[in-house]
Amino acid sequence: MSNLKILLDESDIPTHWYNVVADMPNPPAPYLGPNGQPVTPEMMSAIFPPGVLEQEMSAERWIPIPEKVREIYRLWRPSPLYRALPLEQMLDTPAKIYFKYEGVSPAGSHKSNSAVAQVYYNKIAGINRITTETGAGQWGSALSLAGNMFGVTIRVYMVKVSYDQKPMRRTMMQTWGAEVLASPSNLTEAGRQILAQHPDSQGSLGIAIAEAVEEAASRKDTNYTLGSVLNHVLLHQTVIGLETRKQLEKAGDYPDVIFAPCGGGSNVGGMMFPFLADKAAGKNIRLVAVEPTSCPTLTRGKYAYDYGDSAGLTPLMLMYTLGHNFMPPGIHAGGLRYHGDSPLVSQLCQEGLIEAVAVPQVATFEAGVLFARAMGIIPAPESSHAIRAAIDEALRCKQTGETKTILFTLSGHGHFDMSAYEKYLSGELQDLNYPEADLQDSLQHLPNISI
Amino acid sequence: MSNLKILLDESDIPTHWYNVVADMPNPPAPYLGPNGQPVTPEMMSAIFPPGVLEQEMSAERWIPIPEKVREIYRLWRPSPLYRALPLEQMLDTPAKIYFKYEGVSPAGSHKSNSAVAQVYYNKIAGINRITTETGAGQWGSALSLAGNMFGVTIRVYMVKVSYDQKPMRRTMMQTWGAEVLASPSNLTEAGRQILAQHPDSQGSLGIAIAEAVEEAASRKDTNYTLGSVLNHVLLHQTVIGLETRKQLEKAGDYPDVIFAPCGGGSNVGGMMFPFLADKAAGKNIRLVAVEPTSCPTLTRGKYAYDYGDSAGLTPLMLMYTLGHNFMPPGIHAGGLRYHGDSPLVSQLCQEGLIEAVAVPQVATFEAGVLFARAMGIIPAPESSHAIRAAIDEALRCKQTGETKTILFTLSGHGHFDMSAYEKYLSGELQDLNYPEADLQDSLQHLPNISI
Repeated sequence: MSNLKILLDESDIPTHWYNVVADMPNPPAPYLGPNGQPVTPEMMSAIFPPGVLEQEMSAERWIPIPEKVREIYRLWRPSPLYRALPLEQMLDTPAKIYFKYEGVSPAGSHKSNSAVAQVYYNKIAGINRITTETGAGQWGSALSLAGNMFGVTIRVYMVKVSYDQKPMRRTMMQTWGAEVLASPSNLTEAGRQILAQHPDSQGSLGIAIAEAVEEAASRKDTNYTLGSVLNHVLLHQTVIGLETRKQLEKAGDYPDVIFAPCGGGSNVGGMMFPFLADKAAGKNIRLVAVEPTSCPTLTRGKYAYDYGDSAGLTPLMLMYTLGHNFMPPGIHAGGLRYHGDSPLVSQLCQEGLIEAVAVPQVATFEAGVLFARAMGIIPAPESSHAIRAAIDEALRCKQTGETKTILFTLSGHGHFDMSAYEKYLSGELQDLNYPEADLQDSLQHLPNISI
Repeated sequence: MSNLKILLDESDIPTHWYNVVADMPNPPAPYLGPNGQPVTPEMMSAIFPPGVLEQEMSAERWIPIPEKVREIYRLWRPSPLYRALPLEQMLDTPAKIYFKYEGVSPAGSHKSNSAVAQVYYNKIAGINRITTETGAGQWGSALSLAGNMFGVTIRVYMVKVSYDQKPMRRTMMQTWGAEVLASPSNLTEAGRQILAQHPDSQGSLGIAIAEAVEEAASRKDTNYTLGSVLNHVLLHQTVIGLETRKQLEKAGDYPDVIFAPCGGGSNVGGMMFPFLADKAAGKNIRLVAVEPTSCPTLTRGKYAYDYGDSAGLTPLMLMYTLGHNFMPPGIHAGGLRYHGDSPLVSQLCQEGLIEAVAVPQVATFEAGVLFARAMGIIPAPESSHAIRAAIDEALRCKQTGETKTILFTLSGHGHFDMSAYEKYLSGELQDLNYPEADLQDSLQHLPNISI
């Protein structure tokens, strides 16, 4: 019997993060302020610590991972790489399928990789209080876990509809000592304004971001963190791809194609960036971001400067965007409901180094259940997007007889998403579409900045 | 930095289960039928396959694990042994603390170790349909996962109150293709009788067992499975202790004391039996079963023949029991609410080789939260019983300065128990007591069989 799991020792946890900026064909476009001029680190220092800002702007190829961060990574890292033999057999495909399983983190997803690092840089900057927002709860959970490890107080503004519908995620954060508030709250000006107009508001990620940023900007002792999109977040996630490279070497293999689910881009960057230099050097490897058809940022969005939040508080970033007013339908993969995307991932898509596909909700759950029956692990709905694309590729190989090596990121488990599975299994789940007119309207209201 | 996780290769998955019967000072007492005569394998063959019955009666020391079972074990085994350094630091204890983490199984607990084996022996006996009962849902989940792997239909009678209150566990089983029914149901005579008298019955484990056994006994194509108590179940769980021995050897260590949570005894047997021969040979090692004070089978029960179920349908077993009519309070560690205990564990307690302690509910959750903050992992309430005892031992070591090596089984994660954590964190959780008169009454109604 060959091994299903390719494991590494804790001494194999990467000592450095990989910064893709060093190997990109062109330097990243700068973030712009409201005046159209590049944003300086000083302007962001009200809410981010120096260590994070330095990484956000860095062009150094290798950035050392602090020993204290590696020490906490040891609680779950290196994560296992699986050879999905039972899935291959179930699909009767000649392709080889590997997946990197990030659900082994206590918080249940890859998000912890960046949460630990971000809390660390705040801690050494003397910051003992951090705010953030969370929708589905993955990022809030990861940050709560990390805050707990460093003795840093975490306040999570949780979108009210999730706060009410996902009490288990809320309790998970509280178990690690975090304070969780329903957003909109009456603790911020942003929240109070919304509540004055809409006392029954169910909240939104845009409102929650506004509350968390407002509080961090107004208190010297408090900073803000984000779980995706920004350069430093993707940098921290490269431990995924770096470990995977080592594990595949151990297995004597190399991927022909890599799939990762794509919302803000932290999975895509984390897994694919460490393979990007090979690709840029002409290696025949496909890097494919997988997004939902109901929020098709990379496949149907415009490459343009836009705000990162719906309220227009953040700097302008050059990225694929559906427009910051775009409201995606309420699919169950809450982590993929984002109008924009990582500027780094967007630029690499624009330059043809990363591709994108979109998959619909029902087919995604079908793939998730098929995977659970083959491998046991019940995937998060976000992760199932990559599974869908990987299965489709394996089935194409079955038709063509190609023995491709397929790799994907299984970014998290679905233990807190069972109500979505219940809907799928009972036949109630449907594909959700946005009105085409809404998308066109949203795309016409982008900030007017030429690139 | 020393490693937190001591890992084994898949080739280190044990090739044989260890049968403690071979090393017990005295042979196990036989199960008795209603007539007081020993039960024969033939009498149990209506609901169990030959492979299982053979193991139930075996005195062979080593029993080969079928290759097909080892193949499925590879999905999550060998499970990691952790050196709990962050917990040691938090407690400021000179003791070393290790724990074996069984929550890495896709079903979330050690239960899968026996579920896979039991489904396998049914499958090779031509049985493609299995019934079982589940309360909290751990066993039902494990059996559903295993049934899915072998293409065996699983029907789970789930206690109605759990069916209604734990929809996520229900959906998990359905995701793996199992059929889940609320018990009492109108599909069995036992269920119909209850519903006729109590149309609003919330069910009980005793009723669910009765329904599952009735269906299995009345259909030639259907067998029944049990997730704890019986010899073959504990046998299958010995992979836990066998792997742990190997992992401790790798770490150059040996335990002074082992703690495992105890409901029906499958954790205790699984972890401790492989260390029992050492103990019987005079090695200075303490083996301690940890049970809830609200269901104190080993610490306050009587060593006597009693039924395994509340309805008196099963054979009589010589075990520690609170009486089959004893109704434990509704603590959140549903897996530990059992009036009896494994006959093997009971006999070894009676002979002084295994000890028992009882811990109350609030202190147990306090230990679980402390553990989650030290190690990240949120434990199942059942598992937290062993954590409580291990922490107490480590704190004693702090007082005495002893550098003991403490080992415990972390039998599962608490992802589906967050509502219990919510109660604890909000201060609503209380210690639950049974009326002493009820216990005395229950103990006076044991079957009249001299031992």
